[in-house]
Amino acid sequence: MTGLDNFSVDPWQIVEPGLDLASMARAESLFALSNGHIGLRGNLDEGEPHGLPGTYLNGVFELRPLPYGEGGYGYPESSQSIINITNGKIIRLLVDDEPFDLRYGELLSHRRWLDFREGLLRREAEWASPAGRTIRVNSTRLVSLTQRAIAAVEYTVEAVDGPVRIVLQSELVANEQLPGGPEGDPRAAAVLEAPLLAEASHAGGTKAVLVHRTRYSGIRVAAGMDHFIDGPERLDTVAESEADHCRISVTTVLEPGQKLRLVKFMSYGWSATRSLPAVRDQVEAALTAARYTGWDGLVAEQAAFLSEFWETSDVEIEGDVELQQAVRFAVFHVLQAGARSEERAIPAKGLTGPGYDGHSFWDTETFVLPVLTYCLPGAVNQALRWRHTTLPMARERAVQLGLSGAVFPWRTIRGEECSGYWPAGTAAFHIGADIAVSAARYVRATGDVEFEREYGLELLVETARMWRSLGHHDAVGKFRIEGVTGPDEYSAVADNNVFTNLMAQTNLRVAAEAAARHPREAAALGVDTEETAAWRDAAAAMFVPYDENLGVHPQADGFTDHQVWDFERTPPENYPLLLHYPYFDLYRKQVVKQADLVLAMQVRGDAFTDEQKARNFAYYERLTVRDSSLSACTQAVIAAEVGQMDLAYDYTAEAALMDLHDLGGNTRDGLHMASLAGACIALVAGFGGLRDNTEVLSFRPRLPTGLMRLSFSLLVRGQLLGVRITHEGTTYTLRRGEVIHLRHDGEAVQVKAGTPVTLPTTVPPAQERCAQPPGREPARRQPQAGVAAGTLGPGPDHLAAE
Amino acid sequence: MTGLDNFSVDPWQIVEPGLDLASMARAESLFALSNGHIGLRGNLDEGEPHGLPGTYLNGVFELRPLPYGEGGYGYPESSQSIINITNGKIIRLLVDDEPFDLRYGELLSHRRWLDFREGLLRREAEWASPAGRTIRVNSTRLVSLTQRAIAAVEYTVEAVDGPVRIVLQSELVANEQLPGGPEGDPRAAAVLEAPLLAEASHAGGTKAVLVHRTRYSGIRVAAGMDHFIDGPERLDTVAESEADHCRISVTTVLEPGQKLRLVKFMSYGWSATRSLPAVRDQVEAALTAARYTGWDGLVAEQAAFLSEFWETSDVEIEGDVELQQAVRFAVFHVLQAGARSEERAIPAKGLTGPGYDGHSFWDTETFVLPVLTYCLPGAVNQALRWRHTTLPMARERAVQLGLSGAVFPWRTIRGEECSGYWPAGTAAFHIGADIAVSAARYVRATGDVEFEREYGLELLVETARMWRSLGHHDAVGKFRIEGVTGPDEYSAVADNNVFTNLMAQTNLRVAAEAAARHPREAAALGVDTEETAAWRDAAAAMFVPYDENLGVHPQADGFTDHQVWDFERTPPENYPLLLHYPYFDLYRKQVVKQADLVLAMQVRGDAFTDEQKARNFAYYERLTVRDSSLSACTQAVIAAEVGQMDLAYDYTAEAALMDLHDLGGNTRDGLHMASLAGACIALVAGFGGLRDNTEVLSFRPRLPTGLMRLSFSLLVRGQLLGVRITHEGTTYTLRRGEVIHLRHDGEAVQVKAGTPVTLPTTVPPAQERCAQPPGREPARRQPQAGVAAGTLGPGPDHLAAE
Repeated sequence: MTGLDNFSVDPWQIVEPGLDLASMARAESLFALSNGHIGLRGNLDEGEPHGLPGTYLNGVFELRPLPYGEGGYGYPESSQSIINITNGKIIRLLVDDEPFDLRYGELLSHRRWLDFREGLLRREAEWASPAGRTIRVNSTRLVSLTQRAIAAVEYTVEAVDGPVRIVLQSELVANEQLPGGPEGDPRAAAVLEAPLLAEASHAGGTKAVLVHRTRYSGIRVAAGMDHFIDGPERLDTVAESEADHCRISVTTVLEPGQKLRLVKFMSYGWSATRSLPAVRDQVEAALTAARYTGWDGLVAEQAAFLSEFWETSDVEIEGDVELQQAVRFAVFHVLQAGARSEERAIPAKGLTGPGYDGHSFWDTETFVLPVLTYCLPGAVNQALRWRHTTLPMARERAVQLGLSGAVFPWRTIRGEECSGYWPAGTAAFHIGADIAVSAARYVRATGDVEFEREYGLELLVETARMWRSLGHHDAVGKFRIEGVTGPDEYSAVADNNVFTNLMAQTNLRVAAEAAARHPREAAALGVDTEETAAWRDAAAAMFVPYDENLGVHPQADGFTDHQVWDFERTPPENYPLLLHYPYFDLYRKQVVKQADLVLAMQVRGDAFTDEQKARNFAYYERLTVRDSSLSACTQAVIAAEVGQMDLAYDYTAEAALMDLHDLGGNTRDGLHMASLAGACIALVAGFGGLRDNTEVLSFRPRLPTGLMRLSFSLLVRGQLLGVRITHEGTTYTLRRGEVIHLRHDGEAVQVKAGTPVTLPTTVPPAQERCAQPPGREPARRQPQAGVAAGTLGPGPDHLAAE
Repeated sequence: MTGLDNFSVDPWQIVEPGLDLASMARAESLFALSNGHIGLRGNLDEGEPHGLPGTYLNGVFELRPLPYGEGGYGYPESSQSIINITNGKIIRLLVDDEPFDLRYGELLSHRRWLDFREGLLRREAEWASPAGRTIRVNSTRLVSLTQRAIAAVEYTVEAVDGPVRIVLQSELVANEQLPGGPEGDPRAAAVLEAPLLAEASHAGGTKAVLVHRTRYSGIRVAAGMDHFIDGPERLDTVAESEADHCRISVTTVLEPGQKLRLVKFMSYGWSATRSLPAVRDQVEAALTAARYTGWDGLVAEQAAFLSEFWETSDVEIEGDVELQQAVRFAVFHVLQAGARSEERAIPAKGLTGPGYDGHSFWDTETFVLPVLTYCLPGAVNQALRWRHTTLPMARERAVQLGLSGAVFPWRTIRGEECSGYWPAGTAAFHIGADIAVSAARYVRATGDVEFEREYGLELLVETARMWRSLGHHDAVGKFRIEGVTGPDEYSAVADNNVFTNLMAQTNLRVAAEAAARHPREAAALGVDTEETAAWRDAAAAMFVPYDENLGVHPQADGFTDHQVWDFERTPPENYPLLLHYPYFDLYRKQVVKQADLVLAMQVRGDAFTDEQKARNFAYYERLTVRDSSLSACTQAVIAAEVGQMDLAYDYTAEAALMDLHDLGGNTRDGLHMASLAGACIALVAGFGGLRDNTEVLSFRPRLPTGLMRLSFSLLVRGQLLGVRITHEGTTYTLRRGEVIHLRHDGEAVQVKAGTPVTLPTTVPPAQERCAQPPGREPARRQPQAGVAAGTLGPGPDHLAAE
């Protein structure tokens, strides 16, 4: 399944006007609701049919053994897998004698939509039962962004003809049976059967609670529900509970036009340490608070939260309504993933599916946090504090690996390394620098000195120590880092990966700077001036390989000497290559899964001349197959920088449509959070030209011909900077705050409150389009025929209005 | 346990004068008997106590799944493990009411010895039962070198005091319970429990047969036994059989001085295709033939076989009786491993234990076959024909890996790749060249044109095709081979490994030459002149990296830029490093597990100048920790070549004593066949200076001060060349044949029948001893005080006599 065939284009919502049973799992990911703590896949209320049932709690996982055909020292012995916890979404409906099941009877209409301003998943269905009774079902589901432990559903059934006997069964179901994943694809999660051991179960009145514990990881999980019921006078309510199952049943008879309305509040809590009564009580207290707020109250809080969020965080596009929709979809899901994660990881798929076992990777710090930094900085603070909580594990890992400082895991839920293949796991040491650079960015963007002192400094120090011990000086005094894996997973265990070396250089420098800013705290961490000097020296001596013959940077030592992959003889069905060719063959040839050297040019543009950037970009374009969803956005950014505007536009759209168009074919397993965040990066760092690795933000705005306007805002140290780019000019408006300094096309600019500054938007000279491997060109973004900017509807255009 | 403490030094045998229960497993490996088809570990006749029971048939294995924490394309899904098949060695003895068990009662004396001229494992024990009865037990065991399917035991029990009631139970036991292996050491074999499914069982008279089938690999295994019994007139014999167990019991009463003698013939057969009656009949027929030959006949055949073997294959050493013993021990076990393997693999441990799962590696072609080529060329023919039978699997593997020709497995029993870690498995493509070079050597040494035409050519062609498709020409026309692993397992997946590139060069050349010699057969394989031209071109353009700054060859691209391992801070208990440090750390640093570049200098000495050899050797000596048993012999060879004679001597002794002194600490799992063969190589190619990669053999003899004389013989094209080296001179004698051409210290020499040629032995100038990593220096070979050459006994000294 690809394409948007099941969904309509709308600037503020995704709408599914019908129902395609074959691609339900994809829709469940797209319609997933989450607040970063709870995640509910967009399963139908009645539970079946489904693609993949999913209810997740951030941090609730089970351990599973990591087997090896041939083991080795330091291999992790167990992995952590996200588990499908107690499902509270289920509301089954019996219509006379027939269960409401879309596979039977006649579905007269079905429509679901998710409005990014509401944060509600809405559903309307009209259905004739096999016996010929017609009903209307409306449901609205939310996962509260304001009450972390709470989700809720408003469910209404209306008799169209009748009278009809209705039974609603609102349930909590633990240990749901899950369908198996696709065979042999390492990207799909391991299916864990019945991971929950029953501890307590209670139902009474309209309320029920289930408490379970995971078998090996020992995490206690409580799920509760309570209800408001509204309907005809004669209503029977029954509460039942079993070990893995609670049910509140409501029975009535509806005359034509009559409705039965059920509001279901769900609450979740978990702990690895607290007692059963404590966790149960926590869940019941949250339920009580939600009842107090009421359905309308929850809906209003949700709208208020989102209104404020969009006010500062909207990215507006004129000229491409599909891209507009996709970018808001992206921003919305990034918000959902990070909003309330609160000292937990932000997984690669958020809480939208079980893909990658629910693990967090470098995706978080490299793609998701750079976006959240300028719209929801508190979430960044929380995410980095989560990394800080894992320092004891990262230090232990460093000791095991014979290194100093801390080695953060390539993939994890709780903090332990869960990678079962070290060349593409542990060897990707750049994760350490990704975290450090993210912390430094957060501090620069927010001025949060307290965070730096209490958390950031230690992250910087321990990662700098790791780099210092990982690298070494060679005979001519260059500092080399050998045997590591960079971002590109079609190479591994190479020497002097440019991205890694440059990121390590930054890491070493910012650590030394932070230690100088906080001498007392640094001393408490054992840092002295000899150590910071060693960091600065290593940074200054950092080796960056360069191929003089070709005039390009090899991704790592020797890369440009390697044989070029035979793209001509690679049939389209053999992508992604990793599923059709052995690693040995990928690793030894010039073929790039995802931007690596190109990403280095984004994060460390200062290390390259403009000519090098153009040559490098063209060189790696020919080699990059984008078998990773983490590539297009970076290619978009550098394409824009080197003046390949149409290519940048194409890549931006690819990043933004990754899930809406299911470009990777695996949206069923969850959304690609990094690619969604990457779409924002493509727009802001690509067309906006934002670079934030120095004290002041710098912009180099330019637009592709397909777009008329791009507007976005950035929260910087409590101030809100609006940027509005058209082909003619770029207007900087300080929407909150007094004065801000920035750079526009290299020139220093000062923007004061009330005085927007408009400067010309550069039009890069036309140039020949860079070539990609045959068959791997991005889809050319077509002009949006028939979808004029006017159809954008009444969306706010604050910047233009100011 | 280290040291020879349990064994006496004797030039022709190993003798165990007592019994050390704690190191029984080691003794079982040392005393293992095999003919290459059947292998019996040196377990006690009565089965217990044991270290590790072991009865093996070459090619009988079970499949086991190869698990991966994270899978990948082309990973083998199952491995093959050698299994302990039906044990026919067991003869239990009941003395009155007490089982003869060395752990109880009083062991008055116990002595076992294995004479390399007899090929018999002999045992004498005198034991007083807990009840005070004393008996003498003598047993002699053989695995026939002349009757492939046959093993036999002569077992005699004598009453010392008495009268005593004796019960002998001669058994066949399938699915013996095995002790677990050491945890976490990947070198120990997976223990497979009860791998045999019972198919048939029969016992009657003095004969019994058990037939089983392996569960997953579907191999049918039959074991039979028959007996001669000799003793007092009143003897009762009972035959019993169960599914996994057959027993012939003999009961009698012995007066003091009376004996009961049992001769047990065992026969084994197996097939993956033949029917149960066919396999059973084959075993019974072999038994009948053995009975016909009789015990004395088998013993005589064995002695005759060995007499002929030693006549042509002895390596004599004067001045170091321990080394003399060790080398004969080595030659004997290499003979046992290869003698009758007959189109089956020669495993890394022969059939002496379950180590490395019973797999064959490059060890066979690189270490074992070079020795057998000049003493038992028929065994080499058979071993290479086994490789030839695996070509269909190797071609399939090549297709899977996207390569042309054939990719032979890094480790296997039947022929499929069984490596569960590709960087140290599949990536070691040099296995292909190892096989090709071995085939070319065999043809050069034997003139076996028929073999070349029917088997060798195809091996050469398919490996040459593999190399041509694995490598590529770079922009300046050099042929590069990238992303492969050389012999040293502390590096992996590197570019242009010198050993690999030079071996590939040879492979490509010899393939083109063989195709030219057999144009019709080559054409039948699809080889045309364009293809051979492409091979020659690639060979001529082969890239060999060289570090101009250091004046040494990097083992692979970039190696000499890497950080040097911190040997100073590596405590002795952290060796072998692979059990205490992660691969990532080993791979990225300059630390060498086993000779790699140094081995390249042995097999392709023509590619290096003398100065380069000396510099390279000194450079790699400082980095080589010899965590592999495949290293010392190669270091010995090149040490001798560069004039480090004492060092060469030390390494020779290390290779030779690997198992007798249990230097690797894992002799319990089986003998290190390659190191044993390597001891011969160290003597012949090291002190003899033999190089055989050109049409005539060349010698550069020189001796360490510790040795007075080294003599050996080589079978070359049916002729037998004797070489006798003393410090004064080297005498070449043509012991069979008419005339032979050779080189001595670079000069052409012609040796005719009846006219020995004596030339001076070079004395290399004294030089500073090369340094090794601290703590990893080889033990200094001490002068053999008190064991004068005279104690060598009456061993034949043909060469001196001629």
